[in-house]
Amino acid sequence: MQTKYLAKIFVTLRPSVLDPAGVAVQSGLQQLGYDNVDQVRIGKYIELTITSTEEKKARQDLDRICDQMLANPVIENYRFELIEVETQTGVF
Amino acid sequence: MQTKYLAKIFVTLRPSVLDPAGVAVQSGLQQLGYDNVDQVRIGKYIELTITSTEEKKARQDLDRICDQMLANPVIENYRFELIEVETQTGVF
Repeated sequence: MQTKYLAKIFVTLRPSVLDPAGVAVQSGLQQLGYDNVDQVRIGKYIELTITSTEEKKARQDLDRICDQMLANPVIENYRFELIEVETQTGVF
Repeated sequence: MQTKYLAKIFVTLRPSVLDPAGVAVQSGLQQLGYDNVDQVRIGKYIELTITSTEEKKARQDLDRICDQMLANPVIENYRFELIEVETQTGVF
């Protein structure tokens, strides 16, 4: 039995890492008059579907995928949520 | 009374818009052996703090900020969550 999961993955810079893009956005917002905005940090939001026989296996795959490809573990953190979208029975 | 909110903003490509970066990541994952991954879409995840007298005002500001600076409304959708982090009384 295969289950399809929707994964919502958040990749954010570690708090100790400088975020020049965030600083630029904050500066731009201040020029537009939004001086009530602070601490802008820009990360990545990735959605994908992953098919697996069990949720534990899907989570293990996602951990490896994030470490190898989606995040740079030296400067970035990641977390993800899994939502079951479809279960299929039968031979694949 | 001023309240500080943490805003978590998600900017995603509209479903009808092609995502070349997502296609590239999916192709890379397949080369790494992850052929159970599909429909990769890459967006932005932005965190910022916004200070306002009321939540409604903070939401209005954020709508304008997203339209003007964080998202391109022609090809991107956005949504955000607000979390109250601090309330301060007194004169500002």
